[in-house]
Amino acid sequence: MAAEIEWIEGGGVTSPAGWRAGATYAGIKTYGEEPRFDIGILASEAACTVAGVFTQNAITGPSVTLTRERTSNGVAQALVTNSGISNTATGEQGMRDALRMTELAAQQAGVEAELVLVGSTGVIGWPLPMDLVESGIPSIELSAEGGTEFSRAIMTTDTVAKHRAVRVTVDGRSYTVGGTAKGSGMIHPDMATCFCFLTTDAPVDLDWLRGTLKAVADVSINMVDIDMDTSTSDTMLLFANGLAGGEAIDAAHPAAEALHEALEAVAIALARDLARDGEGAQTLIEVVVEGAATVDDARLVARTVSSSLLVKTMITGRDPNWGRLLMAIGRSGAEVVEQTITITIAGERTFQDGAPTDADLVQLATAMDSDEVQLRIDLGRGDGAATAWGCDLTTEYVHINADYTT
Amino acid sequence: MAAEIEWIEGGGVTSPAGWRAGATYAGIKTYGEEPRFDIGILASEAACTVAGVFTQNAITGPSVTLTRERTSNGVAQALVTNSGISNTATGEQGMRDALRMTELAAQQAGVEAELVLVGSTGVIGWPLPMDLVESGIPSIELSAEGGTEFSRAIMTTDTVAKHRAVRVTVDGRSYTVGGTAKGSGMIHPDMATCFCFLTTDAPVDLDWLRGTLKAVADVSINMVDIDMDTSTSDTMLLFANGLAGGEAIDAAHPAAEALHEALEAVAIALARDLARDGEGAQTLIEVVVEGAATVDDARLVARTVSSSLLVKTMITGRDPNWGRLLMAIGRSGAEVVEQTITITIAGERTFQDGAPTDADLVQLATAMDSDEVQLRIDLGRGDGAATAWGCDLTTEYVHINADYTT
Repeated sequence: MAAEIEWIEGGGVTSPAGWRAGATYAGIKTYGEEPRFDIGILASEAACTVAGVFTQNAITGPSVTLTRERTSNGVAQALVTNSGISNTATGEQGMRDALRMTELAAQQAGVEAELVLVGSTGVIGWPLPMDLVESGIPSIELSAEGGTEFSRAIMTTDTVAKHRAVRVTVDGRSYTVGGTAKGSGMIHPDMATCFCFLTTDAPVDLDWLRGTLKAVADVSINMVDIDMDTSTSDTMLLFANGLAGGEAIDAAHPAAEALHEALEAVAIALARDLARDGEGAQTLIEVVVEGAATVDDARLVARTVSSSLLVKTMITGRDPNWGRLLMAIGRSGAEVVEQTITITIAGERTFQDGAPTDADLVQLATAMDSDEVQLRIDLGRGDGAATAWGCDLTTEYVHINADYTT
Repeated sequence: MAAEIEWIEGGGVTSPAGWRAGATYAGIKTYGEEPRFDIGILASEAACTVAGVFTQNAITGPSVTLTRERTSNGVAQALVTNSGISNTATGEQGMRDALRMTELAAQQAGVEAELVLVGSTGVIGWPLPMDLVESGIPSIELSAEGGTEFSRAIMTTDTVAKHRAVRVTVDGRSYTVGGTAKGSGMIHPDMATCFCFLTTDAPVDLDWLRGTLKAVADVSINMVDIDMDTSTSDTMLLFANGLAGGEAIDAAHPAAEALHEALEAVAIALARDLARDGEGAQTLIEVVVEGAATVDDARLVARTVSSSLLVKTMITGRDPNWGRLLMAIGRSGAEVVEQTITITIAGERTFQDGAPTDADLVQLATAMDSDEVQLRIDLGRGDGAATAWGCDLTTEYVHINADYTT
């Protein structure tokens, strides 16, 4: 039994010990609510063990290339980010600009440049305006209260900043985990990127950290939408600076399970925050799949259903049209048999034993009129389970993505 | 060199010799322009060699199951269809109803019931109103002029009936190919189904017909959208009644190439008709991929780009935002290298040699203001080529799919 997870209200990436952050508005992005921020720095007092997971897109920008390379060493101490321009498809100049950003941030944070990672999100194909970056970064002031500013500096079409933190205590020692994320959730945003950055003051073993981050990503950010893990800049980083003290945590450590759960709790909360804030979204869709032949099958069904346009629009229209779920389940590629599938929408069983139930669909339509709707699917084939998150598709999504003009 | 293809104005499934069709409004579907039709029969004077390709969805309705089984014999003479209800997820009653439809149609067409195929399209999970079917089918009058009525009887959210016909002449003998299709194209319609039915008076070898239909499907209907081949009822049928006379056409026959091209011409024209009439669509998108390492890679890129929401919405907004194409190319799974990709939008090169060109994007936005936009992608890796069709995503799509309530 792991330790209880204690949520820290208003917490974020600077909640763990030894973390400072700050941001500025350099003028790179032209949108967002006042006060706008478009460059942020996150830094630790001590060098961190670090792990990352990155986009599977065959085309990536120099910022991703550089950060992936530096993360492979397993050590980092700071992160500099910008929003508005993704520094992708920018050739050799893009790599020079990414390196220069880390140098400027290193000076500001007082750390070695080689220990600074970089993340850029925004329009593909435009060069970074380095004059604005050169003048902007030196104005950033880092503090333990700067976590929210940092979270705002990575926003693009996001409407709210996403930051979370929890604390777990094991054998009298407390570990804190903070996190922030951005991205417009279900539908691959034009602004091209999902970021998720996690910090902790726990001391960790590098191999354990890498394995744990991969496992956490697979049940959180990677389950928001099937498109999200394939943009050109998707980046998830986990920094552990060890300032909570004690022995490095590996699989055999008594705090391993608690820390894993704390990381998972923060990452899932951020994943849900992303889905809820999807471009134009009014409703969070949670798809819970059980009874699959394998976990992979469960993930396949959950992701296929949550990303189906017809499922999204049936939620938009508060329409308990379970036939659309059946169709998405059938085309998912998972092992399914019509006769063993049970479909439950907002708590009401609508399909079972190969036939519609006598559910009152008019009443169910009313129950669906909520800012969160759960779709539960039991495949009746085994023990595989998975949960995915998405959001409804509204005319506002089309406006956001069609009315923007280069 | 194959024979020249001659288009038959206003032609359709009854253009080849020996074909009759008709339709009625039985009251199954409650929508569509007047006069509405919802049950249709297509029949040949002589028994036909027949081939079919069907949905890959793991869940299919009894109509698909029955038609697949009967098509496996390679012989059929008629087809009965209904729109409004797909007869999917309807259990054993659904199979009884499908069989009964073929019996009723057999009586009306004067053919053996075992030689009648059946197709149903519409809402999933509702039983067919068999009293309406029983009274409707006997009122259908078949004639050589009934092709258009038949094409109207398979429409669901389609706004126009799709029918095409061509004639080719080889060594003094003419062969005619007719076809009809339905489905709202790029985006998997709620009404769940894409149908494409082709007829010809050519005499054919069964193995050749099967291989040719598969090849034709792969460059036409299967390239409209990545979702289309996975609905629960997708069906493509090709009937050949041999009434044009002459030797059965196989690969060695002098008319084989001409007939293949005629079938392909009709199927591609219908595929483009489907994309152009996609739910809420204003613009046909044609994605031409060249220079891929393999044909499979070319197909993957063409289908990924044509089905990307961000590509669709950039066409909606007449926005030459080529970065969205680059992203879709990168996530397609095909072998791609940023430096060898060339992107051309509406005739204007926007990305080449790993960098943006100096194309005038404002002027290009004006050029994109058309009811058809071509996106051309050269991957620079080999000789693989493929073309896919899709359409833009408008707020009207969301209205169509969200405002419908069970």
